Amino acid sequence: MSGTITISVDAMGGDNAPRAPLHAAKLLLRERPDARFIFHGREEVLTPLLDEFAELRPVSEIRHSETVITMDDKPSQALRKGRGTSSMWATIQSVRDGEAAVAISGGNTGALMAMATFCLRTMEGISRPAIAAIWPTVRSDIIVLDVGATIGADADQLVDFSILGAALARAVFDTPSPTVGLLNVGVEEAKGNEWVKDAGKILGETSGVGFTYKGFVEGDDLGKGTVDVVVTEGFTGNVALKTAEGTARQVGTYLRDALKSSWLSKIGALFASQALAAIRSKMDPRTVNGGVFLGLNGVVIKSHGGTDEIGYKSALGLAYDMARNDLIEKIRDGVSRFPAPADPAAPTSSEAPTA
Amino acid sequence: MSGTITISVDAMGGDNAPRAPLHAAKLLLRERPDARFIFHGREEVLTPLLDEFAELRPVSEIRHSETVITMDDKPSQALRKGRGTSSMWATIQSVRDGEAAVAISGGNTGALMAMATFCLRTMEGISRPAIAAIWPTVRSDIIVLDVGATIGADADQLVDFSILGAALARAVFDTPSPTVGLLNVGVEEAKGNEWVKDAGKILGETSGVGFTYKGFVEGDDLGKGTVDVVVTEGFTGNVALKTAEGTARQVGTYLRDALKSSWLSKIGALFASQALAAIRSKMDPRTVNGGVFLGLNGVVIKSHGGTDEIGYKSALGLAYDMARNDLIEKIRDGVSRFPAPADPAAPTSSEAPTA
Repeated sequence: MSGTITISVDAMGGDNAPRAPLHAAKLLLRERPDARFIFHGREEVLTPLLDEFAELRPVSEIRHSETVITMDDKPSQALRKGRGTSSMWATIQSVRDGEAAVAISGGNTGALMAMATFCLRTMEGISRPAIAAIWPTVRSDIIVLDVGATIGADADQLVDFSILGAALARAVFDTPSPTVGLLNVGVEEAKGNEWVKDAGKILGETSGVGFTYKGFVEGDDLGKGTVDVVVTEGFTGNVALKTAEGTARQVGTYLRDALKSSWLSKIGALFASQALAAIRSKMDPRTVNGGVFLGLNGVVIKSHGGTDEIGYKSALGLAYDMARNDLIEKIRDGVSRFPAPADPAAPTSSEAPTA
Repeated sequence: MSGTITISVDAMGGDNAPRAPLHAAKLLLRERPDARFIFHGREEVLTPLLDEFAELRPVSEIRHSETVITMDDKPSQALRKGRGTSSMWATIQSVRDGEAAVAISGGNTGALMAMATFCLRTMEGISRPAIAAIWPTVRSDIIVLDVGATIGADADQLVDFSILGAALARAVFDTPSPTVGLLNVGVEEAKGNEWVKDAGKILGETSGVGFTYKGFVEGDDLGKGTVDVVVTEGFTGNVALKTAEGTARQVGTYLRDALKSSWLSKIGALFASQALAAIRSKMDPRTVNGGVFLGLNGVVIKSHGGTDEIGYKSALGLAYDMARNDLIEKIRDGVSRFPAPADPAAPTSSEAPTA
């Protein structure tokens, strides 16, 4: 790729598509002049739009796709209807074919995960993909996974998620040996369900695997940034993510209402307007947009569907960084450093394997 | 009980015991002159302290207990060491013996749950106890359960939690038919794990059970107050509760830092000081203190162990309200309105049961 980074963009996915993703690409290009784009979608819509964003033209390519996956399509429907023909599928296929380093879509999450898994396949040594979120904390951003790719996870899968999350932390935070914690209902060894306890035992015995296991963490450690990577199964991770988003909005509502409650507080808000704007931007979900699909033979980012060009630009920036810092190689390295789990069904060397 | 409500108080549980619980009782008595107290703990400590809070003397009784359960005692240890002899056990026993309408302790949660379950036993028709939290939202307070009594819950247990939570809502919020939602990773029927989906089917077919089932809710519905009662299993509920607490603290840190960031913002904070104090009090965890143990033959409240007299007073007020509004009767009524789940192991009428 001779120094450039090509991003494959589903230009039809999300509420503000195709304008927001193209506008975001223009914004990214100003910061990352070596970014290149392949926009997938309806040619008749994208061609005139690309003319509007003239700076993009020399670094972009449009690929026509007939079908658009909607937010109502169930994953299985989306696969049937859109495999081979949809902009979502084509976006992922560009990564599989080596034309692009990373894929991004603001479309239907379930459909995107189904297509990504089908098209790219799970990476060797990893049994299931996960979705990782970048989580702002009072310390610095951390990574939380799985936030909803799959429901439930056994001990080995939680260990896989640790490897994947640590590789992502190495790629985007530039920390050579990130700290990893398992989300639990207490920090004592005896707490939690069997899967979490077993995963804790496996991780506790590791060393030289590219991350440092710090034990169990609790829900309030997320906002504190106690560790760089928090690992949990998809149901709990999804609830935690949405609970945090909801609580942040709730406190924001309290603040707005309180500052409007009297003329004194309105004057106060005026004086503090710059400070309040700084908080708003800190709590702006657009600044950390993008769920990263990990564990596949290629990187796919899900942008929030309702976001604008600022949100898309964050997701594109994340995509660029992951590709630039060789996330996939870092994951392969992480997997290879880990001892393969003993397979109880595997024949021993003295037995002849039965076909 | 001739109009009075007797609260059994573990005066030795929590960081600020025994002073904080006694001080809190004095504060409650000013608002609820018909409250009565039994304080359990070391007589030599409690007697002089009660002299300090002279108003309490005519409405209080001290019961000596030799043993104090510590925060480090594991539930099984606590039962061995403290059954019959500890202030925690005696506090619960006063409810079992009908001397008090409700029990409260700021001690070790695991030990309190083990003792409460052992001493009071699970209520008929309910298979496992749950801990319910009162959750502040932008609408009004709601109830969330289970927030950590037990890890994992099958469909029938989630239905039990719905009955318990709805009864609590009727008792403390005075809503005749509270709305109930099941916490899930999406609102569509096909989302989530089998237990949640099955519980949703069972609840969806109910009517006249004392609450209205509203379907699935997500993590961000907690802060919105979409329903009066949110039901989930203990692992996810505990993570959600701590994540929300952590996020509220995180936003509070952002706000404090921002308002200190310049002289303009400091002036603004001064003008808005009353409004900011209102938010602080709204986000003060002491105003909604108390985890309610539900599903036992008697009500037990766990106060936060680190709280002061203000926090204890909130928990005592909650205890008083639950007893005044006949929570236990409301739960029994809720259980009786529900069709008993079919027991697949039960013999049919044509078969003679084998002893």
